[in-house]
Amino acid sequence: MALKDSYELPAAADMHVHLRNAPGPIAELVTPTIRKAGVDTIFVMPNLAPKPVVSVAEALEYKAQLQAIDPSINYLMSLYLHSSITPDEIREAKKAGIAGVKAYPKGATTNSQWGVVSFDPFHEVLKTMEEEGIVLNLHGEVPSNASEGVTVMNAESKFLPVLKNLVDKYPRLKIVLEHCTTADAVETVRSFGENVVGTITAHHLSLLVDDWSANVNNYCKPSAKSPEDRKALLNAVIHSKGKFFLGTDSAPHDISAKKGKGNTAAGVFTQPYALGYVLTALEEAIVRGDIASASEVTDDSLAGFFSIYGRNFYNIPQATQKIRLTRDGQTVLDSLKGTGAEIVPFRAGEKTWGVEWL
Amino acid sequence: MALKDSYELPAAADMHVHLRNAPGPIAELVTPTIRKAGVDTIFVMPNLAPKPVVSVAEALEYKAQLQAIDPSINYLMSLYLHSSITPDEIREAKKAGIAGVKAYPKGATTNSQWGVVSFDPFHEVLKTMEEEGIVLNLHGEVPSNASEGVTVMNAESKFLPVLKNLVDKYPRLKIVLEHCTTADAVETVRSFGENVVGTITAHHLSLLVDDWSANVNNYCKPSAKSPEDRKALLNAVIHSKGKFFLGTDSAPHDISAKKGKGNTAAGVFTQPYALGYVLTALEEAIVRGDIASASEVTDDSLAGFFSIYGRNFYNIPQATQKIRLTRDGQTVLDSLKGTGAEIVPFRAGEKTWGVEWL
Repeated sequence: MALKDSYELPAAADMHVHLRNAPGPIAELVTPTIRKAGVDTIFVMPNLAPKPVVSVAEALEYKAQLQAIDPSINYLMSLYLHSSITPDEIREAKKAGIAGVKAYPKGATTNSQWGVVSFDPFHEVLKTMEEEGIVLNLHGEVPSNASEGVTVMNAESKFLPVLKNLVDKYPRLKIVLEHCTTADAVETVRSFGENVVGTITAHHLSLLVDDWSANVNNYCKPSAKSPEDRKALLNAVIHSKGKFFLGTDSAPHDISAKKGKGNTAAGVFTQPYALGYVLTALEEAIVRGDIASASEVTDDSLAGFFSIYGRNFYNIPQATQKIRLTRDGQTVLDSLKGTGAEIVPFRAGEKTWGVEWL
Repeated sequence: MALKDSYELPAAADMHVHLRNAPGPIAELVTPTIRKAGVDTIFVMPNLAPKPVVSVAEALEYKAQLQAIDPSINYLMSLYLHSSITPDEIREAKKAGIAGVKAYPKGATTNSQWGVVSFDPFHEVLKTMEEEGIVLNLHGEVPSNASEGVTVMNAESKFLPVLKNLVDKYPRLKIVLEHCTTADAVETVRSFGENVVGTITAHHLSLLVDDWSANVNNYCKPSAKSPEDRKALLNAVIHSKGKFFLGTDSAPHDISAKKGKGNTAAGVFTQPYALGYVLTALEEAIVRGDIASASEVTDDSLAGFFSIYGRNFYNIPQATQKIRLTRDGQTVLDSLKGTGAEIVPFRAGEKTWGVEWL
């Protein structure tokens, strides 16, 4: 048994997206591809460089700049959890419609150099977020540390006690464990109440450690892990029950940051084809047996994961438009080229599911 | 307490080296760097492409071609375990001074496409090797296989039962588990008699999974793993007692195979600086506490690991020349450039221990 040949679904919401500085060559290349993927709403990450988004004013300015590129998208904006943020700024953020505050453990990933060492100094801010209903978005990894045995392979599992402490201390705080990559993370998110959820990317539904070891375009943080972990993610997608929804962590890097001099930038670029990749990964999982039966991939499970659950969590209206996904409906470009930027997408050159707006 | 500022040691033997096809641009660039590293004897791997070294005649021709590049090196030659090899060829190999037969599990690494799926069809060949005293050199990984949960991170540990079976079936066969990368492998090698040993590379004494995740020049098979694994390797070097000796697996790839289009070639190039890297790694391990005391790094342990134990195992004479290693004695080149090849060495641009011939 296989998937259907096509699915009609509500327009998607991608609750974890990197668009980079706007105006800027990457934002101008990437932002117009959001709708192409069947997405009308995105949660925009604040880890800009050389300065992250740490105030309401900066977030609103960034939003306006993105709207200037594509006004048809609903941009959910976020702040970067930083010592300069006060409880008053959180209350202002709530009034201004800011959706979340992203916490980056210092040193864990791209542009995390201004990030969190301990959550203790943020107690008042976190309490205010809990009161105001502002979401805490967690990059769920501790920084690699040889003396403590932490590597990219166990950095997420070792973060889970930090998540548990936050849940204990702020029981009503809405928390997203972003880009879950392990069976451990899935299980831990499931163990909490409905105010704690996880996002899952498109690429982690396909990739294993082997796939990024030899392909820089598949390398990201958190890194893809074992077959058992991938299987847990795939089953979390189709049996989400609201606990997991799409957050692609689409992370565009110019080809020079991937294949040029110096170290490889972490990030997989999935924006234009995100839903297609998920369907392709689900089909491959059925063939492998990671998903027991295609009948588990219901229209409702796809609509929930792609669109409904994320909007519910962020308290925004459900989609009014519909999209149709069709098997082998498109071929992924070898690269996206713009003025001053070239970005290689995930699964470049391969067929994936196509998207039409209905 | 720190290491001494310099060590006088017998010239080294590097018992696992890739020189690529000769004549050829990479062999011509790399072979002249062997002596520069303080090495007078090398064990040459047979995984040439498009055709591996599968006969005595081919091995001797390859040896002559390498001698034409640098006649001052003692080249120990090997065959690639392949269905075309007969027990008679093994007896011929013994007469011709061939030192070993390398087995590559099919699909496990560079140019392993002609490799072994099962050792069963090689029973007569392996028995003849046991009788003749020809060494079996093992690439100790099973191929990655998602349905069996095998990834680059556990491929070596999952190979160890294969090694145990070989030891049980051919108890007098001389076996080298090449490029050990895990605590599991070290422990397993130690559990067998003196006819089973392991080689350890220079780079695995420094690298962790994090180090290759973002740096293609550090990516190799078997891949570097956890801090605990690295610690086990470091301690195996200094407490070898003959069970472990140097085999750098120096694997030169043109920069286009690392940073060009397509997937990243596996291999770390360490040839010109191999001994220096080991000393640098030992010093770093003392600082980290992975080696309890610098006093464990004795002259005898270094002489054994670098030179004596490998020669004993292969039944060749001990070195007659001496070398001196000196802290910060050289800076690693950013790259080695020749006609038609450019190779980036490990720790490019960094200081490491220098080598003088005495």
